[in-house]
Amino acid sequence: MQEYGLFRPIDSQALGSGEKENRPIPEPGPNEVLLHMSCVGICGSDVSYLKRGAIGDFIVKAPMVLGHESSGVVAKCGSNVKNLKPGDRVAIEPGVPCRMCNFCKSGKYNLCPDVVFCATPPYDGSLCRYYKHAADFCFKLPDHVSLEEGAILEPLSVGVHACRRAGVTMGSNVLVLGAGPIGLVSLLTAKAMGASQICVTDIAENRLHVAKSMGADHTVLVKGGNLEALAEEIKKLMGDMPDVTIECSGAESSIHLGIVATKSGGVLVLVGLGPSEVKVPIVNAATREVDIRGIFRYVNCYPLALDMIASGKINVKPLITHRFKLEESIKAFETAATGSGGAIKVMISCE
Amino acid sequence: MQEYGLFRPIDSQALGSGEKENRPIPEPGPNEVLLHMSCVGICGSDVSYLKRGAIGDFIVKAPMVLGHESSGVVAKCGSNVKNLKPGDRVAIEPGVPCRMCNFCKSGKYNLCPDVVFCATPPYDGSLCRYYKHAADFCFKLPDHVSLEEGAILEPLSVGVHACRRAGVTMGSNVLVLGAGPIGLVSLLTAKAMGASQICVTDIAENRLHVAKSMGADHTVLVKGGNLEALAEEIKKLMGDMPDVTIECSGAESSIHLGIVATKSGGVLVLVGLGPSEVKVPIVNAATREVDIRGIFRYVNCYPLALDMIASGKINVKPLITHRFKLEESIKAFETAATGSGGAIKVMISCE
Amino acid sequence: MQEYGLFRPIDSQALGSGEKENRPIPEPGPNEVLLHMSCVGICGSDVSYLKRGAIGDFIVKAPMVLGHESSGVVAKCGSNVKNLKPGDRVAIEPGVPCRMCNFCKSGKYNLCPDVVFCATPPYDGSLCRYYKHAADFCFKLPDHVSLEEGAILEPLSVGVHACRRAGVTMGSNVLVLGAGPIGLVSLLTAKAMGASQICVTDIAENRLHVAKSMGADHTVLVKGGNLEALAEEIKKLMGDMPDVTIECSGAESSIHLGIVATKSGGVLVLVGLGPSEVKVPIVNAATREVDIRGIFRYVNCYPLALDMIASGKINVKPLITHRFKLEESIKAFETAATGSGGAIKVMISCE
Amino acid sequence: MQEYGLFRPIDSQALGSGEKENRPIPEPGPNEVLLHMSCVGICGSDVSYLKRGAIGDFIVKAPMVLGHESSGVVAKCGSNVKNLKPGDRVAIEPGVPCRMCNFCKSGKYNLCPDVVFCATPPYDGSLCRYYKHAADFCFKLPDHVSLEEGAILEPLSVGVHACRRAGVTMGSNVLVLGAGPIGLVSLLTAKAMGASQICVTDIAENRLHVAKSMGADHTVLVKGGNLEALAEEIKKLMGDMPDVTIECSGAESSIHLGIVATKSGGVLVLVGLGPSEVKVPIVNAATREVDIRGIFRYVNCYPLALDMIASGKINVKPLITHRFKLEESIKAFETAATGSGGAIKVMISCE
Repeated sequence: MQEYGLFRPIDSQALGSGEKENRPIPEPGPNEVLLHMSCVGICGSDVSYLKRGAIGDFIVKAPMVLGHESSGVVAKCGSNVKNLKPGDRVAIEPGVPCRMCNFCKSGKYNLCPDVVFCATPPYDGSLCRYYKHAADFCFKLPDHVSLEEGAILEPLSVGVHACRRAGVTMGSNVLVLGAGPIGLVSLLTAKAMGASQICVTDIAENRLHVAKSMGADHTVLVKGGNLEALAEEIKKLMGDMPDVTIECSGAESSIHLGIVATKSGGVLVLVGLGPSEVKVPIVNAATREVDIRGIFRYVNCYPLALDMIASGKINVKPLITHRFKLEESIKAFETAATGSGGAIKVMISCE
Repeated sequence: MQEYGLFRPIDSQALGSGEKENRPIPEPGPNEVLLHMSCVGICGSDVSYLKRGAIGDFIVKAPMVLGHESSGVVAKCGSNVKNLKPGDRVAIEPGVPCRMCNFCKSGKYNLCPDVVFCATPPYDGSLCRYYKHAADFCFKLPDHVSLEEGAILEPLSVGVHACRRAGVTMGSNVLVLGAGPIGLVSLLTAKAMGASQICVTDIAENRLHVAKSMGADHTVLVKGGNLEALAEEIKKLMGDMPDVTIECSGAESSIHLGIVATKSGGVLVLVGLGPSEVKVPIVNAATREVDIRGIFRYVNCYPLALDMIASGKINVKPLITHRFKLEESIKAFETAATGSGGAIKVMISCE
Repeated sequence: MQEYGLFRPIDSQALGSGEKENRPIPEPGPNEVLLHMSCVGICGSDVSYLKRGAIGDFIVKAPMVLGHESSGVVAKCGSNVKNLKPGDRVAIEPGVPCRMCNFCKSGKYNLCPDVVFCATPPYDGSLCRYYKHAADFCFKLPDHVSLEEGAILEPLSVGVHACRRAGVTMGSNVLVLGAGPIGLVSLLTAKAMGASQICVTDIAENRLHVAKSMGADHTVLVKGGNLEALAEEIKKLMGDMPDVTIECSGAESSIHLGIVATKSGGVLVLVGLGPSEVKVPIVNAATREVDIRGIFRYVNCYPLALDMIASGKINVKPLITHRFKLEESIKAFETAATGSGGAIKVMISCE
Repeated sequence: MQEYGLFRPIDSQALGSGEKENRPIPEPGPNEVLLHMSCVGICGSDVSYLKRGAIGDFIVKAPMVLGHESSGVVAKCGSNVKNLKPGDRVAIEPGVPCRMCNFCKSGKYNLCPDVVFCATPPYDGSLCRYYKHAADFCFKLPDHVSLEEGAILEPLSVGVHACRRAGVTMGSNVLVLGAGPIGLVSLLTAKAMGASQICVTDIAENRLHVAKSMGADHTVLVKGGNLEALAEEIKKLMGDMPDVTIECSGAESSIHLGIVATKSGGVLVLVGLGPSEVKVPIVNAATREVDIRGIFRYVNCYPLALDMIASGKINVKPLITHRFKLEESIKAFETAATGSGGAIKVMISCE
């Protein structure tokens, strides 16, 4: 029997109270490994599932274990597994696709409609002592990469996918809207891809300090007001309009800014999710050929994310601001939910 | 002296009264040709400039000759011109870029901020007896391609650019929203590019008949109502969601439909221009990675458009429904403005 | 027990004598179907394995059933199969990849080092009464598409992959070197993709007649002689150098021609395989940025190939020149090996 | 009158003796600037023209001034010039295309057949006191970028074009064959683009030391011998086969190595030019889909190359090993030709 750290008890009156329980240790299939879990980071989506029981159309209808930003140590290998052995420390890519649909076959497995994704209803997450997972979605960490860094590969992969979809390359001028965890990993990734100048905006000054310390060339505190003027200010700071804008807030005004601030022929990538419908300056985007591209999770990004960390190109350690034990999961979620104490990424240790 | 067909007299009390006048015949520069104008099609933008004096930020501030969908016969060549000789029948690509900015150097001359474009303020159009133009933006017509077809290359190039930006290729399922002239040329182009199935929607039944006769596999009459249900209906008709949607109306509801109807990982191309801001289901687009791409005019599309006609791959003749002489320009514009008599494309002869 | 049509008996003194035997009918796994085989086309590689026991590094070391261009009828479905039901007529994509390596995950499963491919040693082919296969690599044929056409999807998919790798698109000028089965399917595919002009070369006049009848705009009989002069002749015929050349012979002189004949900035695709090393005019290719791209089988091409046939865009029936029963396999292979009687594609019926 | 540093005197008995003479100072056209020349680096092609009077089909038929890696100070602006003013320090992109052909219009101006390129016959180079050039092909240097670095932008742009054509991106494993100036700038560029590991080979140990000091992760001394074994050694060093190989020597054995060493689905870029025909393992390349791409000069690379230097991403200063005055041009060329004293890049000052 193993202990589960936290799940959203669907039958509870108190939404998001959180609970723990013991369940049997799972048995890995032929292409799977059993993992002794190490670190699980808390994502905004975990908080949403706990507090509100849903994100858009994804609704929690039965008790569900949370957690999908995670790493562990291989405890047991399925009969066909060749890439791993017991004792290997791994980062866990949380979504396992069907491998048979056209999306999977054409290299877009993130769009697979039958993907099984940790902590997306109805599938349990990894916030527990033992977890089994497809071996090819576990990535062995070199000795000098920590298990915490392994867990960070998940949000970092979002940044990688965002920058790839944006076409960030050497010399790109990049605008990042929002300096939360995803904005920061986008900043780190863009920098590693050779971006020329990166400007980060946020509505909170302290977040901009963090962005600056992590390599932002320019920061802009957004106080509301005229968006076209703000776009102009950004242009002046950067010397030109950004080629690429990565929107990480989901706010309507920020998406608007993302369109008008981006250079003709450039790209606006939507990473942040907010209201399901927003008003956008569509003629401005269309006639200046500013492409609008969303991202859904990531695809083939873990190897790159790991390489960036392992090679020392980027340092993700400053992202981890708070640490808790599995037993303290409720407290960990409270910290992540309120962002108290300047919380960026809250990490739970399952060991 | 030559006669001009129609210009918007900015100093007139009556907006859009239209006038004619005589002006000197221009002298071609070293890389230019003087053209004896043949055919000029009327575009919606011409009508807007005549009736309202502006399109968005483009405002007519001085009398401006209209017309930019045109063909002519070379009357005189500049000293450096090698690709043409007097007597050559040519289609005229109406925008001549600066050739020196980064957009021009990188193959995106349609985004050149200093482009000189026929009948976009403050530059005169080609609705006149004689017109001079950059020789490399004049495309020689083979003997079996008519001068009317030469003029049609302009809207056809919009369809080519739209389909290219959409990535239409062999096997693509394409949804075209709106069966006006641009919807129809997009239909023709997508077909020539090997699209598998093409579905066309419109709010007018007679336009759908035209679309059907020009090769649409499916047509859907839009009567308002639930957009998700409409998307479902289109999916059923096509057997799957379309890979690509080409929006040619600019209406908010149509853009909304374009997003929800398009397959995950697909592309919505915005061709039609309507209100400057519209409400869009942005989370649906973003999380399904449906890319939203606008187009501005066209770039390097005339040779392809000409090839499609010259090789017999497409037949644009049914698009031309009405013909007028230069002297009848006012009447021609009235026909184009009202769409009376089932007008699709109205053509003025300057000969 | 089922009857096998032909395999290369590795322990025989007489290489390629061919044999038949009876083996048990296989049982499909959960994601597999059992197929009652219908049609199997003979490929040059089948002939090589029979006659020489090897192709390059692929060496037949144990008796191996031949055949991989095939179609069949579903006889039984594995427990998880949802896309097919008994009685469905299907085309069989012969290679099933591992689904777990980086090539598979990134949409390049044709490069999967662990692919199991029909009739590539050590894996048996499909020239038999019953065959089991991964259900997602079986493509249901519409009622109006014949099982012979289903078998032709295999070489047609090679043409599709070649044209995709070449970037053939509307308006491309395409040169096809070699008018054998692969040259002809490349011709058909390029045409369906909107190629402007297609020129086909061969050393046999009768093959050029077939190419002409299947839509080639120009044909050139190659008699040896100066390759630069031949390139010049092709340029004159086509009005310009081809944007794309698809080499289907593998001969050194033909690869040389493919380089010098292709437009600067264009692409030479290598489909034909000949000697393992050839001398090429590398400086010509490099300084004119003529890219040289090979193809290995195909990837995600069956759906497109089927769509081209099902929609009537192309007609592959003229490719099938000879038909034999399973019992006549030896005779069928002789016909394919000698090309006697103008044989293009030889088809064996297993029913 | 101005003094010319060195030209190849076509009518001299002694090929490559070099000469100096005085010529009139040129007058800039409306879109041109007159430059007071500052630095001119010596390229292998300059040495070839001086010593042998030709490179391939480019033959010196009249006395021709050498030099094309250069920088200068604006002395006078043509009437239309807006981007520069007298006193501006600029890097000079040496090729000015026609701006009117399809290559120019589609963003591939490096393939323009009518390009006027410094020191490519019959056009004079820039090794002189004054030189006039198209203003949009002069790139203003920030104050902290030296004129020597400005001259280095030329070979650096070759590295940029090579890495772009190769598709080098974050995480790429890159093999660079040859550690001469072009190999070194390719190394620097690949690193700035986020390449994961870079391995450099050469036949000279001292060049490998330089490569190591400039950031190569691995170096391999090539002593001849079995190429497949060498490929295996490189694979072991890098942990996997390289995704990208950049060949900078032009030697047949090195091109062979580049093919067999590169990962399936990868790219071999040919930068070095050697014998016009070489024997290559074409079946290996084709069946593993290793693309072979050449480069011709560069296109739209100067801005990126400048950005890499200006932002401090790369340091090109170690490349400049020898400096001479205009009066010492003969000596400078001797040094460059023999590579004596560990010469990498030899720079001539025209001031």
